[in-house]
Amino acid sequence: MSRDRRSACPIAYALDLVGDRWTLLVLRDLIFLRKRYFQDFLRAGEGIATNVLTDRLSRLEEAGMVTKERDPDDGKRFVYRPTQKASDTLPIMLELIAWSGRYDRETPVSAAFLKRIREGRADLIAEILQRGR
Amino acid sequence: MSRDRRSACPIAYALDLVGDRWTLLVLRDLIFLRKRYFQDFLRAGEGIATNVLTDRLSRLEEAGMVTKERDPDDGKRFVYRPTQKASDTLPIMLELIAWSGRYDRETPVSAAFLKRIREGRADLIAEILQRGR
Repeated sequence: MSRDRRSACPIAYALDLVGDRWTLLVLRDLIFLRKRYFQDFLRAGEGIATNVLTDRLSRLEEAGMVTKERDPDDGKRFVYRPTQKASDTLPIMLELIAWSGRYDRETPVSAAFLKRIREGRADLIAEILQRGR
Repeated sequence: MSRDRRSACPIAYALDLVGDRWTLLVLRDLIFLRKRYFQDFLRAGEGIATNVLTDRLSRLEEAGMVTKERDPDDGKRFVYRPTQKASDTLPIMLELIAWSGRYDRETPVSAAFLKRIREGRADLIAEILQRGR
């Protein structure tokens, strides 16, 4: 086992990469909302701080979950894109949504969407990942 | 929307409760490993600090995910038990395991277990929750 890991536990492995209050929200913006630019992540509703966003994007890049390239249309800014490893966190996000749908009294998640998570998950995932391609 | 929330987003709601490096590991110990006592959580492989464990257990209790009762066999210690709201994080944990199984080169998760997560999830969840009842 690598020395920088807490344990061999697969849950701990995942949490070491995405287990904080912000990383999965950045992944949500990349995957669900298809955001690609630093300023767009910054404008998400949760008010992420610039330094936190910089840190999370660079950790995601190190973990092979985000690519960062100079924007061909504007050499002064970068385009961030999720890799397959990032897109594969979508089922984790769907379960977070399902759980919130069950326990958050103020949830904005519709019963129809919750039903698709339970009963039409593969199609739902394909649809989200296809969107905007 | 309540004032202490970052946004109405269902992913943010879940992360506000379980989105840190430790909370889901405590839930793992409660649900997968059926630990019930403070000392047992402390002895998990990841080396959680006493103050962090105290904090996470009390947050889980506040969130209605853990009950804390005096041990009838030993009045000096407490028994911690997961509620339904806690047990319902199991699908989130299974997706974290599935993702780690795919991307962690040192994963201890067997191909058979990963297959059950994909193809026999309802039975697997029932089996884990039944175990030791």
